Amino acid sequence: MPRLAIIGLGLIGGSLGLAIKRAQLENLEIVGYDAERGVVGRARKMGAVDSAARRATSAVEGAAAVIIATPVLQVAKVLEEIAPALEDGAVVSDTASTKREVVRWAGELLPDTVDFVGGHPIAGKEQSGIEAADASLFEGRPWALTPTAATSERAIKTIENLVTVVGARPVLIDAEEHDSYLAAVSHLPALLSTVLFSLASQSQAWPELASLAGPGFRDATRLASGSPAMSHDISLTNRENLLHWLDRFSEELGRFRNLIEEGEERGDLYKAFLKAQTTRDAFLLELPSHAGPEKKVDIMSAGEQMLSLMVGEYLVRRTKEIGELLERRAADDDGDASRSPKGR
Amino acid sequence: MPRLAIIGLGLIGGSLGLAIKRAQLENLEIVGYDAERGVVGRARKMGAVDSAARRATSAVEGAAAVIIATPVLQVAKVLEEIAPALEDGAVVSDTASTKREVVRWAGELLPDTVDFVGGHPIAGKEQSGIEAADASLFEGRPWALTPTAATSERAIKTIENLVTVVGARPVLIDAEEHDSYLAAVSHLPALLSTVLFSLASQSQAWPELASLAGPGFRDATRLASGSPAMSHDISLTNRENLLHWLDRFSEELGRFRNLIEEGEERGDLYKAFLKAQTTRDAFLLELPSHAGPEKKVDIMSAGEQMLSLMVGEYLVRRTKEIGELLERRAADDDGDASRSPKGR
Repeated sequence: MPRLAIIGLGLIGGSLGLAIKRAQLENLEIVGYDAERGVVGRARKMGAVDSAARRATSAVEGAAAVIIATPVLQVAKVLEEIAPALEDGAVVSDTASTKREVVRWAGELLPDTVDFVGGHPIAGKEQSGIEAADASLFEGRPWALTPTAATSERAIKTIENLVTVVGARPVLIDAEEHDSYLAAVSHLPALLSTVLFSLASQSQAWPELASLAGPGFRDATRLASGSPAMSHDISLTNRENLLHWLDRFSEELGRFRNLIEEGEERGDLYKAFLKAQTTRDAFLLELPSHAGPEKKVDIMSAGEQMLSLMVGEYLVRRTKEIGELLERRAADDDGDASRSPKGR
Repeated sequence: MPRLAIIGLGLIGGSLGLAIKRAQLENLEIVGYDAERGVVGRARKMGAVDSAARRATSAVEGAAAVIIATPVLQVAKVLEEIAPALEDGAVVSDTASTKREVVRWAGELLPDTVDFVGGHPIAGKEQSGIEAADASLFEGRPWALTPTAATSERAIKTIENLVTVVGARPVLIDAEEHDSYLAAVSHLPALLSTVLFSLASQSQAWPELASLAGPGFRDATRLASGSPAMSHDISLTNRENLLHWLDRFSEELGRFRNLIEEGEERGDLYKAFLKAQTTRDAFLLELPSHAGPEKKVDIMSAGEQMLSLMVGEYLVRRTKEIGELLERRAADDDGDASRSPKGR
């Protein structure tokens, strides 16, 4: 039975397992591993994985596909650790929020006998950890895939199908571009959210502020509740892009500061608020086309295709092995025959 | 029948009307007015008001309580316009997001024969306008009330009861303090949200950014969809506090910028993210006690009390008028008697 390994069973890894199980693909075994004690057991009880591995290396043994769902900086360590244990022809992917460094690490650390496809599901929620895992987390969400020129078509297709099976929409994109864009729409917003919450909660008036905080404050600071390890790793692996957008944000904040100081009634400040509102309304109206898959995709056929792609390389290898075995046997037979007492 | 007037039927005014109607108070008529053509008709069809006035002045005629639910800068204009038409003893309140200027205007523009209690429901949503009105908008939310030393107990109690009837929790607070605190937890977050959306949407890469934007970006920029008039008016009527918090935010952003540049693995940057996350988790855990009323309140009795407080002054005045009328009649009778042909 083809085997899929998930290394790292937090919100993303756990949700991935649940979403694949929900698709009810036959003939697929999901093996899970998590470095934190007890997590893989909880994942198995929740039905996110079929079996629990005690080491990352034993999880990937015999696995046709491996998904690494850890914070970014852990990905390098996992790649290094599993590299010697990976099957020939295995397809490896990840779910980390930054892609340039991950793709570089994979190029350096993985053997040529496997394929790597960088991946990033653009989905999430306030909570982290296996307890927050949710089979519908990826539904209608974009899932960025960052293959390089060296990545095989089969590997890309395998991961595209996996992404489709869990309800997401694969988006092929260059790793550098991915990191630049995500800095603007994900990493900077998360940082601003943390800075705002940090500022308010360090104020002497925090008890009063907290009691008067409305849903607006809650939404604006939601990303401050994201995993600290994830935010930290993102900041370090996408530093240049993040600082670039941070500085552009400071400039734009300065522009609004001037407009507020000028304070002309129904002047440029009003126009700036009006423009942001109308542009965002247009953005929200277009969301349905962004959110859903552009064409109807047959999830079951994507699943079957994924499985056949996952096992394809094995069949080729096994056929070759069987061929070689038969050849050896034939040679042995010849030898045996020549030594046969009966003769020809 | 006691009459309540709502001037301004956007999200807040409309939701207020719907929430009061849902409480099914007997003997209360809600008269609505909105400066925008057609809005009051839609409010009546939605059941947010019982009757539609063609002018703000005619809406407040005979009204025991008046709620002004317009953007801040409009409140001054409405106060000026309705002042001559207000009944003696009427209780006037508002729902604007900043309170210092509003309280000052009320002191200058309203006659001494009425009471003003500044109010601010700390509730809202992305959409604005009567179409977005929602009877449950205020449920469990704080509703700041900013009476001055000159405000009568009866007026405070009337508005407190009204706020309780719609499911909110009245919070008595000084107007200056309110504006300072709200700058931190509401006005600054809304500004940051607008600045972030403005920055991203003006980028040349906006189509790509929009297609990769996840729920995090949507939440972080939600407040950019608020009413531009409201955001503009808030910025101008709470300028000093907003600029103060904006500058403190820039400092805190600079602190995080340095931590990212230093980029020590699992160092101070990680600690800063961790602290924000754990503090916010504690904040969310405490929310239930913030969100709900501290003690069980009997909504119906609050409603009856509100009505009796609303009509109380009238009864006193009517009794006085009836007394005067009777005295005049008695005097007339005496006169008549003295002129009676029958004599004594």
